[in-house]
Formats: sequence, C-alpha cells, structure tokens
Amino acid sequence: MAVYVISRRLLGGGSTTSQLAGTLRYGACWRSYSTSFREEKDTFGPILVPSDKLWGAQTQRSLQNFDIGGERERMPEPIVRAFGILKKCAAKVNMEYGLDPAIGKAIMQAAQEVAEGKLNDHFPLVVWQTGSGTQSNMNANEVIANRAAEILGHKRGEKIVHPNDHVNRSQSSNDTFPTVMHIAAAMETNSRLIPNLKVLHNSLHSKSVEFKDIVKIGRTHTQDATPLTLGQEFSGYTTQVKYGIDRVICCLPRMYQLAQGGTAVGTGLNTKKGFDVKIASAVAEETSLPFVTAENKFEALAAHDAFVETSGALNTVAASLMKIANDVRLLGSGPRCGLGELILPENEPGSSIMPGKVNPTQCEALTMVCAQVIGNHVAITVGGSNGHFELNVFKPMIASGLLHSLRLLGDASASFEKNCVRGIQANRERISKLLHEVS
Amino acid sequence: MAVYVISRRLLGGGSTTSQLAGTLRYGACWRSYSTSFREEKDTFGPILVPSDKLWGAQTQRSLQNFDIGGERERMPEPIVRAFGILKKCAAKVNMEYGLDPAIGKAIMQAAQEVAEGKLNDHFPLVVWQTGSGTQSNMNANEVIANRAAEILGHKRGEKIVHPNDHVNRSQSSNDTFPTVMHIAAAMETNSRLIPNLKVLHNSLHSKSVEFKDIVKIGRTHTQDATPLTLGQEFSGYTTQVKYGIDRVICCLPRMYQLAQGGTAVGTGLNTKKGFDVKIASAVAEETSLPFVTAENKFEALAAHDAFVETSGALNTVAASLMKIANDVRLLGSGPRCGLGELILPENEPGSSIMPGKVNPTQCEALTMVCAQVIGNHVAITVGGSNGHFELNVFKPMIASGLLHSLRLLGDASASFEKNCVRGIQANRERISKLLHEVS
Amino acid sequence: MAVYVISRRLLGGGSTTSQLAGTLRYGACWRSYSTSFREEKDTFGPILVPSDKLWGAQTQRSLQNFDIGGERERMPEPIVRAFGILKKCAAKVNMEYGLDPAIGKAIMQAAQEVAEGKLNDHFPLVVWQTGSGTQSNMNANEVIANRAAEILGHKRGEKIVHPNDHVNRSQSSNDTFPTVMHIAAAMETNSRLIPNLKVLHNSLHSKSVEFKDIVKIGRTHTQDATPLTLGQEFSGYTTQVKYGIDRVICCLPRMYQLAQGGTAVGTGLNTKKGFDVKIASAVAEETSLPFVTAENKFEALAAHDAFVETSGALNTVAASLMKIANDVRLLGSGPRCGLGELILPENEPGSSIMPGKVNPTQCEALTMVCAQVIGNHVAITVGGSNGHFELNVFKPMIASGLLHSLRLLGDASASFEKNCVRGIQANRERISKLLHEVS
Amino acid sequence: MAVYVISRRLLGGGSTTSQLAGTLRYGACWRSYSTSFREEKDTFGPILVPSDKLWGAQTQRSLQNFDIGGERERMPEPIVRAFGILKKCAAKVNMEYGLDPAIGKAIMQAAQEVAEGKLNDHFPLVVWQTGSGTQSNMNANEVIANRAAEILGHKRGEKIVHPNDHVNRSQSSNDTFPTVMHIAAAMETNSRLIPNLKVLHNSLHSKSVEFKDIVKIGRTHTQDATPLTLGQEFSGYTTQVKYGIDRVICCLPRMYQLAQGGTAVGTGLNTKKGFDVKIASAVAEETSLPFVTAENKFEALAAHDAFVETSGALNTVAASLMKIANDVRLLGSGPRCGLGELILPENEPGSSIMPGKVNPTQCEALTMVCAQVIGNHVAITVGGSNGHFELNVFKPMIASGLLHSLRLLGDASASFEKNCVRGIQANRERISKLLHEVS
Repeated sequence: MAVYVISRRLLGGGSTTSQLAGTLRYGACWRSYSTSFREEKDTFGPILVPSDKLWGAQTQRSLQNFDIGGERERMPEPIVRAFGILKKCAAKVNMEYGLDPAIGKAIMQAAQEVAEGKLNDHFPLVVWQTGSGTQSNMNANEVIANRAAEILGHKRGEKIVHPNDHVNRSQSSNDTFPTVMHIAAAMETNSRLIPNLKVLHNSLHSKSVEFKDIVKIGRTHTQDATPLTLGQEFSGYTTQVKYGIDRVICCLPRMYQLAQGGTAVGTGLNTKKGFDVKIASAVAEETSLPFVTAENKFEALAAHDAFVETSGALNTVAASLMKIANDVRLLGSGPRCGLGELILPENEPGSSIMPGKVNPTQCEALTMVCAQVIGNHVAITVGGSNGHFELNVFKPMIASGLLHSLRLLGDASASFEKNCVRGIQANRERISKLLHEVS
Repeated sequence: MAVYVISRRLLGGGSTTSQLAGTLRYGACWRSYSTSFREEKDTFGPILVPSDKLWGAQTQRSLQNFDIGGERERMPEPIVRAFGILKKCAAKVNMEYGLDPAIGKAIMQAAQEVAEGKLNDHFPLVVWQTGSGTQSNMNANEVIANRAAEILGHKRGEKIVHPNDHVNRSQSSNDTFPTVMHIAAAMETNSRLIPNLKVLHNSLHSKSVEFKDIVKIGRTHTQDATPLTLGQEFSGYTTQVKYGIDRVICCLPRMYQLAQGGTAVGTGLNTKKGFDVKIASAVAEETSLPFVTAENKFEALAAHDAFVETSGALNTVAASLMKIANDVRLLGSGPRCGLGELILPENEPGSSIMPGKVNPTQCEALTMVCAQVIGNHVAITVGGSNGHFELNVFKPMIASGLLHSLRLLGDASASFEKNCVRGIQANRERISKLLHEVS
Repeated sequence: MAVYVISRRLLGGGSTTSQLAGTLRYGACWRSYSTSFREEKDTFGPILVPSDKLWGAQTQRSLQNFDIGGERERMPEPIVRAFGILKKCAAKVNMEYGLDPAIGKAIMQAAQEVAEGKLNDHFPLVVWQTGSGTQSNMNANEVIANRAAEILGHKRGEKIVHPNDHVNRSQSSNDTFPTVMHIAAAMETNSRLIPNLKVLHNSLHSKSVEFKDIVKIGRTHTQDATPLTLGQEFSGYTTQVKYGIDRVICCLPRMYQLAQGGTAVGTGLNTKKGFDVKIASAVAEETSLPFVTAENKFEALAAHDAFVETSGALNTVAASLMKIANDVRLLGSGPRCGLGELILPENEPGSSIMPGKVNPTQCEALTMVCAQVIGNHVAITVGGSNGHFELNVFKPMIASGLLHSLRLLGDASASFEKNCVRGIQANRERISKLLHEVS
Repeated sequence: MAVYVISRRLLGGGSTTSQLAGTLRYGACWRSYSTSFREEKDTFGPILVPSDKLWGAQTQRSLQNFDIGGERERMPEPIVRAFGILKKCAAKVNMEYGLDPAIGKAIMQAAQEVAEGKLNDHFPLVVWQTGSGTQSNMNANEVIANRAAEILGHKRGEKIVHPNDHVNRSQSSNDTFPTVMHIAAAMETNSRLIPNLKVLHNSLHSKSVEFKDIVKIGRTHTQDATPLTLGQEFSGYTTQVKYGIDRVICCLPRMYQLAQGGTAVGTGLNTKKGFDVKIASAVAEETSLPFVTAENKFEALAAHDAFVETSGALNTVAASLMKIANDVRLLGSGPRCGLGELILPENEPGSSIMPGKVNPTQCEALTMVCAQVIGNHVAITVGGSNGHFELNVFKPMIASGLLHSLRLLGDASASFEKNCVRGIQANRERISKLLHEVS
C-alpha cells in the first residue's frame, strides 16, 4: 500500500498516521482542508497529494521539505503565469518537432489556464526552495499534465500526459526558470511599472505647468536661497521621473533575452536545433514583447546580471521618488508651524487627538516602498554575485525580489499620483508671504 | 442616502454605481466577494463596508487609498496578534482607570480573539499605508469594537463600543504601533528564531562530536592546506551559530522597552499617570516576556534603533549561515567531480536529465533566505535613519521587514537542520583518499 | 593684529597661542610642517594660512572645522583635476562676457596646472565637509586666484585675482560642484574603467577561443551535470563583461549633462544667457567628451540620479566579476584536493608553512573590490535619496564613492587580467580524468 | 646577476631596463623617488627594493602585482600599528619558548617603532591584495626584521633577523592578520569612537537640560502635533546616542577574542602549547584591553562575524546620528522661510550670492559619514558572508571597512559636537510664536 511505502521511505518506518498528519498539516497550511488524497509518483516513489489539487509528487515533496515563511511567500503570481505562457509556447513548438497534436493541444489549453491565473491555487510552493526553481518548474509541469489529462477525459495522476516527457519536453528547469523570470519581469515592467511612471510623470508635468508663474523662495542646505518658481521646482521632479523611465527602458534589451534552449548547462543538450529561436519567437508573439533567444546561453543560466541591472534601475527610481516624496511632505508641512507651501489632498482622518490634521500618508507609503526597493536591490545583488559554475542558484529569490520591487514601485507610483500629486494645490498666500519676508 | 454622500465626497459627484464598483473591486481583491454592505462612519462621513467584515470606516478608506502590492503585502500576522494582546491589556488597565467593566470585558474577549488569530480575515490592510501604522491601529480598534459590540448583543457599526473612546482609550497610534512592533518582534525572536537556532546549534555540535576523529585536508584560499578534523571544521560552524544566538539575545533589552504611554509625541498627553508602567506590566504578564515601559518615550516614537540593531544581529546570523551553507554545499559537491567529503541527504529527485543527482537544495533555500535578510536589513536601516521630528513614519515597513527576516531565518534554520544537517554523513573513504594524495 | 582678531572671533577671547597651536596642529596633520604663515581674509575676517600653500581663508577654515578622517579622506584627485578643467573653461567663456583678458589668461594657466595635478598638495580638504562641496569649490577658487596672481607677478593673498569675482565668476558652488562630479566621473569611466574592462573582455574571449575544444564536466548546484567545453564556460564570462561595458555606456548620456549655468538654485541667476551652453561646449572641447548642458538645471542640482544610476551599473559589473572570480578560484582549487581544472599563474610565494601553494590572490583582490563597490553603491543610494529642496547635500560623498568604485573596478580589472586571466592554463589531464570518471 | 634573473622569471626574458622601469614606477607612485636599490630575496628569487625602504622581497612583489587604487588605499594605519603590537608580543612570548634573546629584544624594539607609527612609510601595500592579508603580514615581518638587524648593527637584507623564522615565529598570516584586525578595531573603538560618542552624548544631554522649560510645537508626519519641550526633544537624541554606546560595547566581548595561535587552519600546527593564551595575555597587557585567546580558532580564521556584528552596531549608530542631524538641520532651517527653532553656530561664510546664510555644514558632513558607514556595512557583510572552508579571504577589505567606519563616525561625532551641538541656541521667540499660532 502506497502510504506504507512512503512512510518507510521518508520516515524510516513511521506509521501511516504520522504521514497523514504531516500531509494534513500542510494541507491545512494551504487552506485546502482536504480530507481526501490520491497517490502520485515520481522517481522517489509514491506520495499522497490532496485530491482537489492538480499538483503531483514533486510539488508535494517540496511542500513538505521547505516549510519556510508560510503562504505569503508563495512564488509570485507573475512567475506562475509566465510558466503558463512558456509551457503553451513549448507545446506549440514541440508539435512542430513531433509531439502528438492531441496531447500538445491539451497542454496548450491547460497552460493557457495557468497563464490566465485560473489555476493559481495549484501553485503552493514558496520562493525558498531549490535555487534553480526546479520545483516550481515541476509544479507547472505536474499541474499542466494533470489538467491536460482531464481535458482529454482522463484522471489526475494517470500520467496520460506526462509532466516530464510531454510538458517539459526539450526543456530543463535550468532553462525554463530563467526564461519565466525574464518573461515575468519584462511583462510587469511593461504593463505595470512604465505605464504608472508615465502617469506620474504626466501629472508632475501638469503641476509644473500649472505652477509656472508662482514665484517662491528657493532652499539650499534647507536654508533660504534665491527664488525660483514652484513650476521650476516641479520640473525637476518631472525630469527625474522621465529619466527614470529611460533608465528602466535601457535595461530591457537584456531582459528580452531568453535562456530557453540552453537546457541543463547551456549547451542545449536534449533539445532540438532551432528550438531556442522558435520558442523565443512564440513567446514574443504570445506576449507582444520583442523577446529573442539569448545570445549566450551559458551566461543566461549561470548569471542573472540582467536582474541585477534592472534592479539597479529601480533602485535609481526609488532614490528619485524618495527625494520627490520627501520634498512634497516637507513643502506641505504645517498647517501653521511648517513650510506650508503645498496643500496636500485630505484622504482620511489624520488623528483623533489632533483633529483637522492632514498627514502626507501617500508620501509615507511611497517612501516606505522606496526603502524596500533599495533593500531588495541589495538582496538581488548578493544573489546575483553568488552564482557557481554553470548555474546561479539564487533564482527564485532574485525573481521574487525584482517582481516585488516592480509591483511595489508601480502600484505606489499610481497611488501617489492618484491620491496625492493630482490633488496638490499651491498655497499661494503662504508662498508669497514667505518670499516677501526674505526680500 | 449614505452612498450618495460618499460619492459626492470622494468622487466629486460621481454616481452610486462607481462607488459600489470601487468597493466591490476591493472586496473582490480580498476574496470576500461580498454582495451586501453596511454603512460605517468616521469624521470624514459615511462609507460602505462589506457586511461580513468587522472593520469600520477608516479601514475601508485605507483599503481604497492604498492599493499597493495586493494581498500578500498585508500587515504581518504577528502584528495583528500583538494588537490583540495590547488592546486586551489596555482594556484591563483602563478598567482600573474607570472604563465601564462591561465594555472593558467585552473588549478583552474580542481582543483575545484577535490575539489568537481568529479574526485575521478582518485585517486586510497592507504594509504600504500611513507610516505611523495609524490605519492598522484603527483597523484593530474597529474590529475589536464591532466584535465587542456583538459580544454584548449589539450590531456592527452601532458604536456601542467605540473604536476611539473605548478600544483606543488613553492611546494613540503613535504609541500603540511601536508597542505592537516590539511585542511582535520579541515574541517571534523568542518563540521562533532562538529555538530554531538552538536546534541548529545542537545539531551542528552533534556532528562536530560525531566527526571528531575524521582527519581531513584543510583548505585555505580554496587551496590544500594543513589537515584538521572534520569535527573541528564543524566546531567552527557550531561556534558561529552559538555566537549568533548571543548576538540576538544582546538586542532584547532594548526590544523589551514599550512606547505605550507616550501617546502622540511622547509626552503622554491624554493618558493617565502610571498607565505606561501598568500596561507594560500587563503585556509582560500576558506574554511571559520581561517587557518594561520605555525609559524615554521620545526616542521610542521618533526612532526605531532597536529594530535597526536587531536587524543587524540577524544580518550577522545571515552572514554566518551563508558561510556554513556554502561550505556544506561545496564539501558535498560531486558525486565524482567535486570535493565529495560530505554526503548530503537526498530529499527529492534531482534532475530528469541527470538521474541520481543529489542537489544541496536546503543550502540553496537557506542562502537565498540569507540574501533576503541582508537586503531587508538595508531597507530597515534606510527606514530607521529617516525619521523626522517626533515620529518615524517608516514603521510598517520596518516592522514588516524585521518580522520577515525573523520568520525566514527561523524557518530556514529549522528546515536546514531537519532536512540537511541532521542527515549529513562523512564520506570517510573520499576524505581519506584526498588527505593521502597530499601527504 | 590679525591673530588676535581671529582668536576673538573663533575662540571667544582665547589666546594667540592656542590659535597658533591649532593652526600648527592642522599644518602638521597635512605634513606641511610650516613654520611661517600669511594672513588671508574672507567675509568672516582674517585667518592664518601656511605660507607655502596657495589656499586661502575659506579652505583654512574648512580644514579646522572638519577634522574628519585624516589625509586619506582628501577630495579625490579626479575632482581636483576636474576643477582645473572647469575653471579654465569658465575663464575662457567669461572673457567672452567681459572678463579682463590678462586676468582670464592667468586663471586659465593656473587652472591648467590644477588640471594636470601639479597643485594637488594645495587641495587639503576632506570629503566630509559641507554637502554642497562649497569648500572645495572655494579651495579651487583660492588656489587658482593666488597662483594666477603669482603668474601676474603679484603675491599670494593680495586678491589681485579674486577667488569669487574672477575665478568663480558667473558660477556658484551649487553648479560647479555637480559639474566637476560629472566631468570627473565621465573621464574616469572613459579613461580607466571602460578600457580596462575591454582588455579583460578580450583576454577572456581569447581564453574562450583557446579552450574551445576542451570538453569538461558541467556543474549545476555545484553537482556534476552534463558536459560542456571550457571555452563555452569562458564564453559566459566574456558575455558578462561585454554586457557590463554596455551597461556602463548606457549611463553616459545622463552623465554628460552638466549643471553649470544653474548657479545657486537652478535658475541661472547671476549668470549670463548662453553661459551654460558655452561652458558645456568648452568642457567638451577640453576633454574630448560629448558634454552638454543639462536639460533641466533644477534636477541637476537637487538630485544625483545619474550617479546612483552609474553606481548601479558598476554594482552589476561587480556582481559579474565576483561570479567570474569565484569560478576561477574554485576551478583552480587544489592542487590535489580541489577541482584543479585550471592552473593559475604563480605570482608570489603562497605560504611558508605550506610550500608550493599557489593562492588565487588576484581573485581575492578582485572579489574584495567587488564587495566594496557593492557597499559604495548603497552609500551612494542613501545619499542620492536624501536630497532636500533645491540642493542635494551629499555631493562630496556621492562623488567620492563613485570615483572610488570606478578606480577600484578599473584597476582591479586590469590587475586581474594581467596577473591572472592572461596566464590561466587548462589542466587538460585533470579535466579529462574528471570527465571520464562520470561517464 | 640578480636583475637578469628577475627579468627572466617575471617577464619571460624581458630586458633589465623594463624591470627597472617597473620598479621605478612603483617607487614614484609611493613618492620615494628612490634612485638606488638593494636586492632582497624570497623563495621566488631575488628582486630589487628601494634602498631607503625597510621592506623586503614579498612586499615588493605585492606592490608590483596589486597596482589597485593608489596610495590612499594603503592598509589603514591602525592595522600597521597593531602589527607592531602583535610582533612585539610575539617576540616576547617566543623568548619564553627559546628565541635568542638578542634577536628577540631587537624585534621588540623594532616592533615598538612600528606600533608607534614611526615606520608607516615602510608599509606601502594596499588593501586590495591577497585576501588573507599575508602580504601585509610579510611586510611587517620584513620591515621589523630589517630594522631589528639594523638595531643589531647589521644591514638591511642580510637576514640576520629572519622575517619568517624569527619575526613570524610560531605564527601564520592566517592567525596574525585576524589578530591585528581585532586589536586595531578594539583600540579604535575604545580610544576614538566611544569617547567621542560620550562627549556627544554629554553635550546633547546638557542641551536637553538647558532647554527643559522651552515649550514648543511637536511635529508628527512633519505636521503640527501636540506640544513638548525642546528639552524633551533633545532627550530623545540623548537616549539614542546613549543606547548607541551600549550597542557598540555589547560587541566587544567577541572583538576581544584573538585568533593568534590557530596558525594556518586553526589547529595550531607549528606553534607551541600555551602560545595562544600567553600571546593574548601579552597583547592585553600591552594595550590595557581585556583580550583573550579565541574560544574556537576555526571560527576565528574562517569567519569574521565579530566584524559584521560590530559594523551592524555602527550601522545603528549611523541611523541614529542621521536622524538627529536631519532634525537639527530642519529645526534650524530658515532664517525666515524655514522652521527656525534652532540657531546653529556660524562656522564659515555660507554663500557669496546669498550673504548672511548659515548652512548646517556639520550636519551635512555627519550625514554623509552616516551614509558611508551604512555602505561600508554592506561591503563588510558581503565579505563576511563569503568565507570558504578554513579561511575567510576578504580580511583586508573587512578590516579596512570597519576601521574606516570607526574613524569616520568617531571623528564626525567629535566635529559635530564641537562645531555644532555645543553651540546650538534655541530661538525662543520663534518657538513661542509658532506654538501660539496653533493654540
């Protein structure tokens, strides 16, 4: 009986009960509250998996071996979705190289569901797993295989569609994981960060125009200096954001390079000639982004310099936004004992002790985000610098860190724009009073 | 009608529909799929809240104003639980100062539920909010007030138990939030990190004893050097972890200092004489940890040096563990073309292309965690250095960062011990062969 | 008497002796052992300056007020030289706007001496001064004024050529210092870093070609994997360095923007129309680098994002080089108990205890440099994010940090190439033995 | 002839001229302008050394092999002096174990000169050398041997006193370098950092008492809040510095542990029983600091956690001081358009364009220092986390980074105290005006 076998293998003769308890514990942890299980197998032998989940044996083992950080540390959704895109494209290209079209189409359909986020609940693994992301690759393979089997009218666990032989065909974790890293990061950059920075840029620019005739005291060393217009001050912020967008865009050519086709060590062993170019092309078509196959697959597996670089661009954007948000909060300080040159929108009650207080809460959220992005950058740098030989094994952390930074910067830029910048008003009276006190 | 009022206020005359849509959108985001709403009010006016949620107006506003990062960025659970502890203690102490006992007891019961994690779903706010954590304090006040009202047989939103006047009595966000930061961090340190580091220490020490007679080649500059025993090598690791525990413990005296009683700026305005000492004592009793009232409340609100310091200790532990895990993976490299002195436990299939491969996956997870802890430390440092005047407003980020590091280091130490160190075997044959090649 | 006046002003009635002692102390600190002094004046009054030094009153005050770090913390030489270039160009352009040609030419000649490093000993100020670099700007103005006076046959301190009215004409520290930052960084990038990275790239590429037929075991997760050629392995390193050069070059367009012409707050008050464009053009001609006037002077004074960005590129290069150097040292580990696939050049005795040992010392120097560059990057980021209003006042630290990183990376790349990479040999026998043990 | 031999060895048959040119170039670089040379030898063969320098062959080789960063990157003076202390103590203890007393005494005398900084010019090596610091250890051995020979009436280079057999007796670079790291850091901590922080603490405390009756507006979120006294505000700063001192002191027990006696890999091979305890005791006596022998020599060589830890404490102090200095500059902002609550001392002219301006230059210098300390901390952490096997080879960088931070923080604290804090005055009129505008 399967359960007995597992127990023997993993627990050195422990009882069925303890194994079940362990499984239940993990099940509980993932809010599945499963009460029924099916058996899945891998080269290690059989293992119980919650019946309502599509994942297989290797995913289940990872869940049990890497109990680190809990649910909120799950692999970021953009990675899961990128696996859907990649596996769909791989099936499509593999059909050109002889994959049974029935199986290929079922894989494509299942992968599409992953790409759309419909199967997120079946990706329970955390970032803190094997450093190659192998277990998340197998998670994708297992889920897609089981789902494709269902599409074809079979049951989960039957291996009608095989996770390795079919879904992962011509691939290795070592090339799929860096590929999905690049797909996910490029998509988040293009769909979230850059558009939100552009909106912020436009809003700052509008303020710069709106305020162009308001002459105010300049401040250097936090001391009174010569005058400038409030519009000029905002033009500096506008320029910072504009260059920030340029900086992020500068990194994209290297982010658009995909490792797929390198397989285990970069040589492309076990894959077909041309597979790398075709798959990059398929991903480009699927995402409408100009992905290409990586010029050098050895670099693409062994290093993640493109992530360190992009994180460096985000770090610069974070430095810019921290400067801007600090200025806004200080220029908006008051209402009576601060600088009081700006009137910030009032979005929520400030204080029960001090009624009427308007806190620069959007500035605060944004600067906290900036600090986190600066910290994530160091984590990514440490990970990026520690690759050994043919494979960098800090991949999930690097991916997670950059996606975290992209999401936070993108969302916080949007929130700051919408809930603060857009509504900033100049306190013309105060500005004028201060200016004339000087002269 | 309430909805109309809200629309006018927030949207400048927008329609009822768009307000509902917005609310629904956020509801959806939090997986509540609520279809019914009740009206809650604050000084800003009325606002709709999902009927099945205990939170009130200020929480709802924060949800709408800080759409940053999504669900996985919610305030960490240890903070939510610490709010439960604090609010329970506050009610207890407030009863000594005249709070109606019926209300006080209901608050204590509701707060206990928060402390036990039973009401986690009612704490939807993200870390990236106001930098004082005011909105999470209000979230706690609102949830506890509504729950206490229910306990007393009333309905949500009735304000029978008032979030400010009763639950937050004699308190300010500016002292409660730093207080829960310290409670949460001290508890995680004592209940998760230190015990797990001790288990790791003991396991490494056992290996050090087990391997005490195995003479092996030493390596300096990665080059062959003079011999030592494998036990001596492990004794170095053991010592690193031992000192790491000491380092973390060294920080606790300052972590046990609670800001509670400082209220808005540290002077204790609006609170009672002796409230600070009593509440620290109540928290100490509740948690069985030696909390005391902070020696200087101005420092306790305006700076979070205790967090920067503790993060520095974790950063040192991370540096130690990265060194240890790197050694283990390199000494375990092979099986034929590496150093091969250690045999690591085989926890999962290694590779479908290269069968039989045993990857040092626990080392990989641990070193990724270490990199993240090093990065979080920089974020915390940036936040800690940027306080202004009477209040540091990077509080939620600082809290979240340290709790993240504590959790990851604690869990990863346990995982590394259980799934790797405990099962490490010396490859005596290989060790001997290498040693004799040299001499 | 002058000395008495100073004493009164600075020391509130202290004696002549203590003032002299103070001056002597600083003199001693700078190894000048001056025994004679002359009087120099600024708006604060007279002050004694060592007779053999060209600097004036403001430099002397800074020396006394900022006794931080000692001699090795002096403003980096590339900044001093860039001041020479800038002041020469300013004099040239100022002559077009009416500066007395006799004075202008003398300034140009004196500034040229500064640009050539001939007057380095007259620039004693440390990085840790005012955050605008004002004192170093005045140091340049004073030295050039005194030297120009000498050229015109006058004595030091006579103010025939005035530091402010003539040398600093149409300028402010707030625009000169960021200008010299950009000049110095762009020159170091072009003359030191990029050429040395190119040499390293070429050397790695040569090795990649030389080793193209040597089949070896691949290693992933530090474990044996499928084979590749040693040439392929080196092609990965080559690509990393190639992209690193691209990354640095990507930053240059923003580094070529000069703040000059913005004066105190970015408005260009006190300067002439067209001065900014003319001076950028003069600097471009002088340096043969495509400098232009900054598109937005407010950004150019208030932020140093171009430095944060470039530092981010260097951080990426550091991550790349750390990976490469780590691989080289591990592949070269042995001679008998390591991997032993590479034979590294023997440049120095390894150990007196262990004769014959060849340590990978160049890898060690390089990886230490990489760690420092990663650290400097954080310092620069912290400084860059902390600008307030119209002026970032972390300028000298930011400048010093980036120039430090540029110098170290450039020199270490050259040293690593010359003393290590160039001489790496493949241990074909060992490589073959390992490969065949596997298959 | 010697020169020919060197040329052949190093340059593969190059001419005498090029070798001389190389030597001269380095000589020039170190300002020695030597025109005469003597021959020194090591196991690599003979090499020319400038006649006026005491160093020997291995130092000369390092000079030529590590042309990185130039003169300002030389090994920090506290390391050089600590080598003097250690070598003196080693000679003393070695005499107990049979070292010829004549030689021993001469070594002690020469080492004392090193300890006093008299021979600094003979320590030309840069930080960026071998990661074990071997070359600086040999530099110390060579200089002391040659100087001791002179004391005994012999000539440099004669090896009457042998660098290895006598000066380095019973030692290895692998234990001496970490030992001098600890000696240097503990001395700098005790003689510079802690005293200066105490002076700063006392000065802030005095201000806190001086300002105890001045009621002022409090500010949270940079917004007007409830009042407090200026004395209370300064009491927060005082507490931060007080705890900072505690934090640094907390690290000392681990810093007082000396690696000496571990020799090459920690086993103490080639040293005598009891040597480790005796030498720690001798160093303790010499320095009046409670040094002890390290509990575990393997940890002491392979890791530098004590440095990462201490750097973490400095990082916390830096975060504290940055907060304090930011507050001081913002509270002192104005004179008319800022907060203007503090009047800062006027130490130098502010601006030629804006006469009368008093810039918070000491705050600026201090906050730049804090940023650098935060950056150095990351560098030290990266170095500390990257040890391999029996030896961490980031030693010189780690040592240099921590000593840099200790020096900068110590000096800047003193400068900030002396030139700023001590002279801060409350602008009572302004404070009162602001306060009453609110109420």
